Amino acid sequence: MSLLTPTKPKLNSLVSIDDLDKEAIERLLEEAEKPFEPDALKGKIVANLFFEPSTRTRLSFETAALRQGANVITVAEPSQTSLSKGESLHDTIKMVSSYSDLIVLRHPAEGAAKYAGEISDVPLINAGDGANEHPTQALLDLFAIKASQGTLEGLSLAIAGDLKYGRTIHSLLKALAPFSPRLYLICPEGLEPASHTLERLKEKRVLFSFHSSLKEVLPEVDVLYMTRVQKERIKGGLIHPICLKPDHLKQVKPNLKILHPMPRNQEIDPEIDKTPYAYYFEQAKGALNVRATLLRSMI
Amino acid sequence: MSLLTPTKPKLNSLVSIDDLDKEAIERLLEEAEKPFEPDALKGKIVANLFFEPSTRTRLSFETAALRQGANVITVAEPSQTSLSKGESLHDTIKMVSSYSDLIVLRHPAEGAAKYAGEISDVPLINAGDGANEHPTQALLDLFAIKASQGTLEGLSLAIAGDLKYGRTIHSLLKALAPFSPRLYLICPEGLEPASHTLERLKEKRVLFSFHSSLKEVLPEVDVLYMTRVQKERIKGGLIHPICLKPDHLKQVKPNLKILHPMPRNQEIDPEIDKTPYAYYFEQAKGALNVRATLLRSMI
Amino acid sequence: MSLLTPTKPKLNSLVSIDDLDKEAIERLLEEAEKPFEPDALKGKIVANLFFEPSTRTRLSFETAALRQGANVITVAEPSQTSLSKGESLHDTIKMVSSYSDLIVLRHPAEGAAKYAGEISDVPLINAGDGANEHPTQALLDLFAIKASQGTLEGLSLAIAGDLKYGRTIHSLLKALAPFSPRLYLICPEGLEPASHTLERLKEKRVLFSFHSSLKEVLPEVDVLYMTRVQKERIKGGLIHPICLKPDHLKQVKPNLKILHPMPRNQEIDPEIDKTPYAYYFEQAKGALNVRATLLRSMI
Repeated sequence: MSLLTPTKPKLNSLVSIDDLDKEAIERLLEEAEKPFEPDALKGKIVANLFFEPSTRTRLSFETAALRQGANVITVAEPSQTSLSKGESLHDTIKMVSSYSDLIVLRHPAEGAAKYAGEISDVPLINAGDGANEHPTQALLDLFAIKASQGTLEGLSLAIAGDLKYGRTIHSLLKALAPFSPRLYLICPEGLEPASHTLERLKEKRVLFSFHSSLKEVLPEVDVLYMTRVQKERIKGGLIHPICLKPDHLKQVKPNLKILHPMPRNQEIDPEIDKTPYAYYFEQAKGALNVRATLLRSMI
Repeated sequence: MSLLTPTKPKLNSLVSIDDLDKEAIERLLEEAEKPFEPDALKGKIVANLFFEPSTRTRLSFETAALRQGANVITVAEPSQTSLSKGESLHDTIKMVSSYSDLIVLRHPAEGAAKYAGEISDVPLINAGDGANEHPTQALLDLFAIKASQGTLEGLSLAIAGDLKYGRTIHSLLKALAPFSPRLYLICPEGLEPASHTLERLKEKRVLFSFHSSLKEVLPEVDVLYMTRVQKERIKGGLIHPICLKPDHLKQVKPNLKILHPMPRNQEIDPEIDKTPYAYYFEQAKGALNVRATLLRSMI
Repeated sequence: MSLLTPTKPKLNSLVSIDDLDKEAIERLLEEAEKPFEPDALKGKIVANLFFEPSTRTRLSFETAALRQGANVITVAEPSQTSLSKGESLHDTIKMVSSYSDLIVLRHPAEGAAKYAGEISDVPLINAGDGANEHPTQALLDLFAIKASQGTLEGLSLAIAGDLKYGRTIHSLLKALAPFSPRLYLICPEGLEPASHTLERLKEKRVLFSFHSSLKEVLPEVDVLYMTRVQKERIKGGLIHPICLKPDHLKQVKPNLKILHPMPRNQEIDPEIDKTPYAYYFEQAKGALNVRATLLRSMI
């Protein structure tokens, strides 16, 4: 499969969700519904460079590669790398791109993926660069929304939690914009989305509003997207996380689905796992489909 | 192969050696004598979650999977996991079980495997949970005993070392019980087996006695099973480990075989490696057969 | 392929570059020019034991194995190993050699590879033992020299940097000796090659001389081999590393190629990457060919 479109002749690297236009996203999500072909990537090598820990993302990329017949080489810890000998990201990417057919990069520095994508001789996927972007998470979020609602167009979504430091949110809001969503944003004070993200929503004429509690908006929405407060990104200061309790679900639409990029802390009461509204585990599983499709379309 | 028995219709997870009755153990050991089929697990993914380091166990499970055509995804360090972001074992297992066909779990907390087995959507093997159980080690011990003695029934065995904190011992004593063994137990003071383990032996009418030195019992036994003192589990206090020296082997049965779950510290003098009594390296190698058979029978 | 030669009936382990005579080196380099056979090592398992971090070397061995159809088991961190439980290198090697078809060993202690090679039941490749030897690096250096110059015989080479602690240099100087090189050595004071290495050069009648600057020798040489100062091996004292700047390249032979074992610190100005003299990334890529050939010839 190829993600070729008239406006984007070749998807060399996926650094930002902006690398995909609406049509490319729609084709990718459609493709992701197809079952795996076990030999689609036979003889290929996917390099996973995780300079910041992320079990979930790393394992889902590895699984997506292996289930399609590719092999995997992995760097999963900063201390394991030549970085400790002073090697530059430039030289690491140059070297690994001469061994592998595609690089998946998670890096703590914003902009690292863009820089690496320009150096790499093989396609590169951004698996998160600091607080910046996490485009494959946004794609799997869209996949989950579409699978649970039957469409992406014209939905009402509440997005709650840390909307500032969660890189997931940046990419998700941008990815949703072309699908005419109605957005209800709920976040602790000081954790509002970056102004450039809000500008983007306005530019795309997305209708959004800020709210102070889940209760206020829950009866209105098709999707509730919860995120955790990124403790590791907040220094000092007390944050009261927004938590979803079973009580919140008394007056909701029957088609409501709750998403979460995981890992969760206490944002979603485990009691909710058993309700028909919980969709976060299905969402996590769908990561395989989306990432497998990306690998297939880029190698 | 299936481990179906009339009393146990399906082996979903192997958490405790109690999950297998005598007949199931015998069938499994018989099956483990067969050579590997390189494509038996083709297209399958085994997830190794090692939240406590254990090179030996991890590598043997990985090898057993790979030699049968399965692929492997691995978490080998606590720091590599989302646990550091506060994720619960519940959510990790839920997620990994949506990616893989079987989970192998090593965890520092007693009871973790039982809990995880109930959450997982795929079969789960306990590869050690704290000081509690290590059922696959017990099975490979039985495999080594049977391979070296020709039978499991009615043997005399000396079991020496830390009989309290070594999780291997708990599982081994329970596994041996149905085979009418005569047990000679030798341990430093304070490292006797847990009372519930001794109760189990009595209940199964196993003849056992405590002894203060190896010399006393060595002429009587077919098998000598040594274990290391688990330094990392003992806080404070001086323990004099029980050590086997070449001198000890002057008056022994010709069929004597020495086993050790490894790693050893100074419990077995390296000089003994060259004697015909040393069987611990063969025992370690047999781990592949037993674990391969388990994977085959559970996936 | 086999590396059998009249003088060396079987290459069991590659511990030192001395394990290969000139003829064996030449045959190996010739073999390394052939393309990969994807199933050459099907069903085999390569064990990578890296008790010291080295992403580059580890990933290239893994890739070389996977691209030929072998599977890989890996220990990439000292803390992941049973060494933390007190296990000896002896027992680790004994165990891993019963699981795998070949062991690749990186170890911080000089002599570890020789010792391990004697214990292992399967062939073993030294991937660096302390400041001692790194024979596969020397082979891939020769591969790069031959590929870039068309021959190994009678070349002029400048070797600059830390010539004492860089294990690469020990192995490289020994490997070059039979090919009648003219060597220009440039190093900071106190970082001259070990006396036994210089003795070896004299014994083999290699013409070499020491120089105080790159400028002095650059117009004469076909190859410039730069190494980094091994900061982690030097305690105290200020070292002024030898650095290559674009200015240095104004008066050089047209066939000059610059090599570096990588990772580099500031020894080579990144501006030089774009010049036709830079060959270090090609050199790194060639590591795959050489290591793949070794795996094929030893398993």
